[in-house]
Amino acid sequence: MTITPPSLLSLTIDSALLHLSSFSDLSHIPDHILIDLFRRTLKAGKLNERILNLFIASGDDKLLSFIKELNIRPVYTPVLPTRNIKDDDVDIVIGALQSDLTSFMNAWKPIFSRFHLIIVKDPELKEDLKIPDGFDVKIYTKADMDKTAGASLTSQLFSGYSCRYFGYLVSNKKYVISIDDDCIPAKDDKGFQVDAVAQHLFNLAVPATPLFFNTLYDPFCKGADFVRGYPFSMREGVPCALSCGLWLNLADLDAPTQALKPEQRNTRYVDAVLTVPAKALMPLSGINIGFNRELLGPALFPGLKLTKEGKLRWETMEDVFSGMCVKVVCDHLKFGVKTGLPYVWREERGDAVQSLKKDWEGMKLMEDAVPFFESIKLPAEAVKAVDCLLEVAKLVKERFAAEKNSVFIQAADAMTEWVKLWKKVVPASN
Amino acid sequence: MTITPPSLLSLTIDSALLHLSSFSDLSHIPDHILIDLFRRTLKAGKLNERILNLFIASGDDKLLSFIKELNIRPVYTPVLPTRNIKDDDVDIVIGALQSDLTSFMNAWKPIFSRFHLIIVKDPELKEDLKIPDGFDVKIYTKADMDKTAGASLTSQLFSGYSCRYFGYLVSNKKYVISIDDDCIPAKDDKGFQVDAVAQHLFNLAVPATPLFFNTLYDPFCKGADFVRGYPFSMREGVPCALSCGLWLNLADLDAPTQALKPEQRNTRYVDAVLTVPAKALMPLSGINIGFNRELLGPALFPGLKLTKEGKLRWETMEDVFSGMCVKVVCDHLKFGVKTGLPYVWREERGDAVQSLKKDWEGMKLMEDAVPFFESIKLPAEAVKAVDCLLEVAKLVKERFAAEKNSVFIQAADAMTEWVKLWKKVVPASN
Repeated sequence: MTITPPSLLSLTIDSALLHLSSFSDLSHIPDHILIDLFRRTLKAGKLNERILNLFIASGDDKLLSFIKELNIRPVYTPVLPTRNIKDDDVDIVIGALQSDLTSFMNAWKPIFSRFHLIIVKDPELKEDLKIPDGFDVKIYTKADMDKTAGASLTSQLFSGYSCRYFGYLVSNKKYVISIDDDCIPAKDDKGFQVDAVAQHLFNLAVPATPLFFNTLYDPFCKGADFVRGYPFSMREGVPCALSCGLWLNLADLDAPTQALKPEQRNTRYVDAVLTVPAKALMPLSGINIGFNRELLGPALFPGLKLTKEGKLRWETMEDVFSGMCVKVVCDHLKFGVKTGLPYVWREERGDAVQSLKKDWEGMKLMEDAVPFFESIKLPAEAVKAVDCLLEVAKLVKERFAAEKNSVFIQAADAMTEWVKLWKKVVPASN
Repeated sequence: MTITPPSLLSLTIDSALLHLSSFSDLSHIPDHILIDLFRRTLKAGKLNERILNLFIASGDDKLLSFIKELNIRPVYTPVLPTRNIKDDDVDIVIGALQSDLTSFMNAWKPIFSRFHLIIVKDPELKEDLKIPDGFDVKIYTKADMDKTAGASLTSQLFSGYSCRYFGYLVSNKKYVISIDDDCIPAKDDKGFQVDAVAQHLFNLAVPATPLFFNTLYDPFCKGADFVRGYPFSMREGVPCALSCGLWLNLADLDAPTQALKPEQRNTRYVDAVLTVPAKALMPLSGINIGFNRELLGPALFPGLKLTKEGKLRWETMEDVFSGMCVKVVCDHLKFGVKTGLPYVWREERGDAVQSLKKDWEGMKLMEDAVPFFESIKLPAEAVKAVDCLLEVAKLVKERFAAEKNSVFIQAADAMTEWVKLWKKVVPASN
C-alpha cells in the first residue's frame, strides 16, 4: 500500500469530509476551502440532500454560483419512462381539509408543478385557502358543488375527505392522481426523494397481472420478469385501472390499532409493486392513489359515512368500502389493481384515543361488508363501470334491506345519486 | 466549526480510513498502525464484511487476537425470534445434483451447522459425494431409495431435482427447509448476510393471512400491522404451511425467458413477506422453501416429468405443478402460503439456449394446468393433506383421461404411488 504524502491542508479537508455528517454549520469556513471541500465531497460520492443543504446554508456566494454552474438540484428517484402519458392527460386532485396548503404545496412543488391541479375545498371549511404561487391550479368550493350537484347532494357526498370525489367528477383527464394534504414526498431506501406521480403513472401505464401471481412482483419493472411457470398466455396482462400507493411514518391504521400502539411508525420501505390477485379483496386507502378515469369512471365513490365520523382518516371508511366495490368491478371488467410503490410520508394529525371514544363503527362494518363483496357476482351485461356501480348499489340494497337505517343502505343511495350525477357531468360515461 | 489540530499520523490514518474501500492489501502496514486503523474503522461504523476480511487477510497476529478478543464474527441479519421452534424440530433437506458439495456446505456452515441435515444424492449421480466435516448429516443414496420404495418407483419419483422429495419422506421433523445446491446465502439491502433458515422458520411460525390482502404485507413482521379496514375477525390469521423464498442474481426464469435475456440478473431486494391470497395461484419454485411437514404431509410431491427434461431448473416443472396442487390443498384446508423473504443467491448453472433446443414442453403444459387447478373444488370430507392429494390425483385423471400419454396422467399416477409410499413410511399421516 502506498499513500502519497499529502499536504496538511489536504489532510484537514479529508478529515472534515470524513466528519461532514456530524457538522451542522459550515459558515465560518473560508470560501476557497469550502469550495475545495465541496469538490471532494462530490468526488467521494458523499453529496446527499442533507449535505447539499448544509453547503447551501453556508450562504457563500462563490459556492452558491458554483453549485448553480454544476446544475445540482435535489434528486428524485428515477422511474421508468411512462409510455405515452402526456402531462396534459393528468389531473392531480387534492382535497383541502386544512386552509393553509403552503407547506404541503411547496413540498410537492418540484413534482406537481408540471401538472394541472384540482384543489377541492372541504365544503365545511370556513377560512379561505392559502395556496402558494407557481402552480397551474383550479380551485373548487361549496359554491361550485352546489351549482353542479345541488346543496343537499353536496352535503351528502362531498364533506370532509369526500370533497376530493368532486375533483374526480369535474376532471376531464384520463388519469387522476390524488394525495391527502397531510402527506409530503417520501424518500426511498437509498435516501432519494420519490416522485410519487411518475410512479403512479408508470403503474397505470404498464399492464397488471391479476390472473396469476408473479412471485418476483411486477414483471414489467426494470430488471424483473415473469417467473418460470407463469402461463405464457397470461403474460400480456390486463389494463391497470388503479394504483394504490403506501405510506411511511404514520401508517394507515385504524383508530383502535393506532391508539394501542401510539409510538408505531412505518419505516419499512418495500421496493415493489404488485397486482392484487383477482378475487382477493384488500383495504384500499384513498390517501395516495392514481387511477385511470376512463376505465374506472365513477367506481371510486363517496357516500359511506359512519355516524360519528370526523375529519381524521382513521375515523373514515368511505375509501375502504369504495375500494372493495372497485375491486369487484375491476375483477368483473378484467382490469387490474396494483399496490405498493409509491410511498408518501404521512405527517401526524389528530389523536387516535379521542377518536376511539366515538364508539368506532368501522370495526363492525367490515365484518358484514367483506362477506358481501366476496359473494357478489355482477351480470355479464354490465360492461361499463357505471353499469357495474348501479348493479352493486342494487345488490347492497337487497342484502341489507332488513336494516332500514343501515350505513350500507345510505351508501347505496348515495352511490346511485353519485352515478346519476356522473352520467350528467360526464356524458362520455353513458 | 472547530477542528482540533490533529497529528500527522492521525491525519494519515484518517485518510487511509477514507480510502479503505479501495485498498486490497494491508499487509505492509506496521501492526500498531493497523490496530489503530482497525479501531477507527470500528468507531466510524465502517466495518463491514469485506473490510473485516481485508484486515483478517493482513495476517497480523496482534490484530487477529484483537479481533478475536472483541468477539467479532461475520454478521447475519437478525430475524425475529422464532416462537417455540426448537432446532430439533427442523430438518434441512438438500438434493445433491453435484458430487462436490464442499463450497456449498461451507458457505452455509454458520447457518446450517445447528440443524440436522438430510442430503439426498440424485440416484443418477455416479461419483461419491464430497461433504466437508462439521455437520450433523445423514446421507441417503439410491440404495436407500430402492430399499424403501423399490427400484422402479425410485426411478419414477426420485431422479434429478426430485431426489429431495425422498428427504421430505424420510424426515421425521415438523419443519423442513430445502435449498438447491447451487445457492449460497444472499445479502440483504444493507449488506448483511441473510439467515434464510431463521426467516423461513419465522414465516412458518407466525400466522398467514390468505383471506384478505394486507397492503402493508405481513402484519406480523416487526413494525408492521393490519391496515385500516382489515376485518378484525380475520386478524388471527391461519396456520402457515409453506414459505417460498426468492432468489437474487439468477432469477428463476424459464428457458425461453432466460435465453432471451441472458444478461438479466435479479438485483432487486424486496424487503417483504406476504401471504398469497386464497384462490390465487402462483408459480412455486422448489429452489428455496420451508414447510410445515405436519400440515402439508405429502402435498409437495415429485412425479411431473417433462419428456425431455434435464438436470437444469429451467427444464423442470415438477415444483411448479406440485405448487399449484399445494395451493389448492392449502386453500381447501385453510392453511396459508407465504412468499417473499428469505432470498438466496443463485449461482450460474447451465446454458438456457441449449435447453431451448429440447422443444420445451413447460410452456404448453401450464396453459392446461392453470385452468384445471383454478376450477377444482375438493370435497368437504377431505380434511387431511393425504386425502386432498388423492382427490386431486383422481380429478387430474378425469380431466385428462382423453390424453393417454399425457404428462398429467403420468403425474397423477406418480402422485398416487407417492401418497401410498408416504402412508407406509409416515404412519401418522393416515
